Amino acid sequence: MAEKSKITDGMSDDELNARHAEKMKKKKAARDKIVATKTVEKGLVIVHTGKGKGKSTAGFGLVFRALGNGMKVGIVQFVKGKWETGERVALEKFSDQITITAMGDGFTWETQDRQRDIEAARQAWERAKEMIMDEEHDLVLLDELNIVLRYDYLDLNEIIEVLKAKPEMKHVVVTGRNAKDELVDFADLVTEMTMIKHPFRSGVKAQKGIEF
Amino acid sequence: MAEKSKITDGMSDDELNARHAEKMKKKKAARDKIVATKTVEKGLVIVHTGKGKGKSTAGFGLVFRALGNGMKVGIVQFVKGKWETGERVALEKFSDQITITAMGDGFTWETQDRQRDIEAARQAWERAKEMIMDEEHDLVLLDELNIVLRYDYLDLNEIIEVLKAKPEMKHVVVTGRNAKDELVDFADLVTEMTMIKHPFRSGVKAQKGIEF
Repeated sequence: MAEKSKITDGMSDDELNARHAEKMKKKKAARDKIVATKTVEKGLVIVHTGKGKGKSTAGFGLVFRALGNGMKVGIVQFVKGKWETGERVALEKFSDQITITAMGDGFTWETQDRQRDIEAARQAWERAKEMIMDEEHDLVLLDELNIVLRYDYLDLNEIIEVLKAKPEMKHVVVTGRNAKDELVDFADLVTEMTMIKHPFRSGVKAQKGIEF
Repeated sequence: MAEKSKITDGMSDDELNARHAEKMKKKKAARDKIVATKTVEKGLVIVHTGKGKGKSTAGFGLVFRALGNGMKVGIVQFVKGKWETGERVALEKFSDQITITAMGDGFTWETQDRQRDIEAARQAWERAKEMIMDEEHDLVLLDELNIVLRYDYLDLNEIIEVLKAKPEMKHVVVTGRNAKDELVDFADLVTEMTMIKHPFRSGVKAQKGIEF
């Protein structure tokens, strides 16, 4: 993915160093200039979508960064049983800063009961709504909300209305593939995780510590 | 991104439920079939690349998942000062399971000293190599190694040779944009983070708890 410059071939080390210093100086100046124009502080609506790995994992990383900064974090899992021991044990170390709503009856790939899943999604969303609107939590992670929206188990308009009404500094992170266009339009920061290569293709199974 | 099926328009709720149950049953069967063929367990070489957010954050999420599973984790930062208070405070809770090599003199966007950066990269890599090869650490995160490789501060062949020789169950995570093709070819799991939308575009600055 990185291309190698042919211009530097045959340059001495001193020449390379001088050239590099000049280049980096310009880069830093350009970077400083951009940063100086960024002055707004506000809570962000962040979406991690795409078919690749890392959507929930990056959400989980954001949670820990926030916890490390002393923030209070709310987590709502819209898919049952996705988070296993690893996450739970790690989160327990911050039990005084965290509220987790695990959907005991949440959406699962193991069941085919649409009506029950809709009810579970609705319950999870009611809890999420409270955490998005309260003054207590600084960041709320809605893990796999996109799956639930994809099946139209919840009304997207209602969710966007709540996001619009949230306290200004609240951060909300939504994960899951197939993010709806309207949510992408509304969000401040959207990253698509694309799978370039997956070990499943070569027969490797999901592994403790990595996948769960 | 999600498309809505027109076929379901006008269906009763019962019809929708039955249709859904059938669909999910098929999906689960297909999924179970795939999972059953995955039997290999091995340490993975994972790469997070691309211009989007979440590469290091997802790496950080993997670290916490591993820590929660009782694994020992090594972290080498190839860019100085990137990880701030948030990560550090969170990691301190697991100090007995973690080894961090912070590059005190590491690569930074603030300097233009190529020679010093090369030496720092070399030192960091020597420490990384030990952690990749030892029997102590289960997962090693090489944060922003791709940047250092991009500038050819380290020899990519040497890195791939070490990855080839690593203990079988060791997981190694490499982050940073512009991953080299040879590394992508060698890795087991590669995810590209693509920026769909970034708040910088609307004047929002980097914020504590989210960006650092």
